[in-house]
Amino acid sequence: MSLLVVGSVALDSVETPHGVVDDALGGSATYFSYAASYFTPVRLVGVVGEDFPDAHRKLLEDRGVDTSGLVVEPGGATFRWKGRYEGDMNMAETLEVHLNVLGTFNPDVPAQFLDTPYVFLANGSPAMQLKVLRQSTARKLAVADTMNFWIETQRDELLELLREVDGLVLNDGEARLLTDEVNLVRAGRKIIELGPRFVIIKKGEHGAMFLSREESFVMPAYPLADVVDPTGAGDSFAGGFMGSLAAGGTADPAALKRAMAYGTVVASFNVEDFSLRRFQRTDRADIDRRLEAYRAMMSF
Amino acid sequence: MSLLVVGSVALDSVETPHGVVDDALGGSATYFSYAASYFTPVRLVGVVGEDFPDAHRKLLEDRGVDTSGLVVEPGGATFRWKGRYEGDMNMAETLEVHLNVLGTFNPDVPAQFLDTPYVFLANGSPAMQLKVLRQSTARKLAVADTMNFWIETQRDELLELLREVDGLVLNDGEARLLTDEVNLVRAGRKIIELGPRFVIIKKGEHGAMFLSREESFVMPAYPLADVVDPTGAGDSFAGGFMGSLAAGGTADPAALKRAMAYGTVVASFNVEDFSLRRFQRTDRADIDRRLEAYRAMMSF
Repeated sequence: MSLLVVGSVALDSVETPHGVVDDALGGSATYFSYAASYFTPVRLVGVVGEDFPDAHRKLLEDRGVDTSGLVVEPGGATFRWKGRYEGDMNMAETLEVHLNVLGTFNPDVPAQFLDTPYVFLANGSPAMQLKVLRQSTARKLAVADTMNFWIETQRDELLELLREVDGLVLNDGEARLLTDEVNLVRAGRKIIELGPRFVIIKKGEHGAMFLSREESFVMPAYPLADVVDPTGAGDSFAGGFMGSLAAGGTADPAALKRAMAYGTVVASFNVEDFSLRRFQRTDRADIDRRLEAYRAMMSF
Repeated sequence: MSLLVVGSVALDSVETPHGVVDDALGGSATYFSYAASYFTPVRLVGVVGEDFPDAHRKLLEDRGVDTSGLVVEPGGATFRWKGRYEGDMNMAETLEVHLNVLGTFNPDVPAQFLDTPYVFLANGSPAMQLKVLRQSTARKLAVADTMNFWIETQRDELLELLREVDGLVLNDGEARLLTDEVNLVRAGRKIIELGPRFVIIKKGEHGAMFLSREESFVMPAYPLADVVDPTGAGDSFAGGFMGSLAAGGTADPAALKRAMAYGTVVASFNVEDFSLRRFQRTDRADIDRRLEAYRAMMSF
């Protein structure tokens, strides 16, 4: 089944202990789309400026991503982020942010996307996420991401959103901020009381925790000797997760667990190089081979 | 098969967000012994002062721990540690340390323990660990723990120890300090080049990573809503790990993985209360039930 994502498309400049890239293709919706494209057709809603290279759009189109919802704003410049990772690379230090066309991003779901059953609301204002969610009247499963900034500045809108989505994805610090609970199991349970059927708490290099009313479990990150650039790991995880669910057409407990594993494995490829470079030399068979290795690692 | 542990026996005073205990039974060899006692007979080598309560020794004896190697130093006082955990409780803040009789601890392996096949050298000076190791001539598998202090002050002795043990257990920060590698897979590989067949890197609430020449994998911590006191978690993990290995009598890859899972589960009980309280109301059936739940969590 097809999968809609609304989120940012960016030009990222990133510095890590392993190198530097300038104005490389990035953004939450970009990483998500590429990751999900291994599993299912993806429909992207986003905005870029006139400076956005055709080659970037083509890269996504070649993966079966429908970019007809990626609007080019006349006279505008694409969202740019500049950041640096040091040491264990668990935290990005933001050096520059230029919102540009993203600053006024308030999309409608294009008519040709209105029938999409699986919907992912990448990090963005809860008010905007809520609008897109409500326009997606054919949705079967909707999951949202969020971040500290929205928890602090649009808490009411976020709580309204949480009453209407099926799942929430956020990182450990965000879960603690949202719930005022240090323990992540307790934080997750509190979030479920706010509305979603399930919550996924991302823990960076330590993997991700899944909680629903029925169960809670942790999936460790796939162990890697070469983490080159963590940018987009969380969005790639979400893309693999939602892509796997959309491909299977169900979200029962077994499908959710398999989706968590696929998300973990897809994210593990992404961090092995800058931007989308590692994805560009990864095919579905590579992902399935690593999934089997991951399964074997956790079997005892 | 029987299992020897040499390490500290302590009276701990601990403060966490969940409460306080004073002069409670603690120490690396204590947690290790109790944890391992679920699986196999344990022989403890350690030292205490005349102030060490008989009830504490009886607690261990009642679990089948042979405490004939726990020496009472005449006129001495037992090792005392006072610490506090705050926030996510991942790091202990040491408030007081009184080494007392532990300061001159340099045991010989008692004659009745010389035939022990499984040996665990809990955190202590590498020179002392090496001496005990070499006295354990009947050993089949020996594993050591260490810490920052020894890496910084007895590096040569530690490197000598690493050439003779089968396995090393240490935490993530210690692995980074020992190898000067931030990435834990790389750090683990470097440690294996120093001698041990395998290394286990403990990551606190994020679980533990296992590395050998053949494989590397991560086992997440068992997710808990109530972490009351993390003191002894690492030693309990090691006790469950070594106890499982000693009980099975083999250390092939499957046995090592099962032992990692048992270590994880045993440690998860320990942190649910202060001192050994949770262990005292936990039996082997409880451990096996949680092991099955843990297995199910990671099956997809």
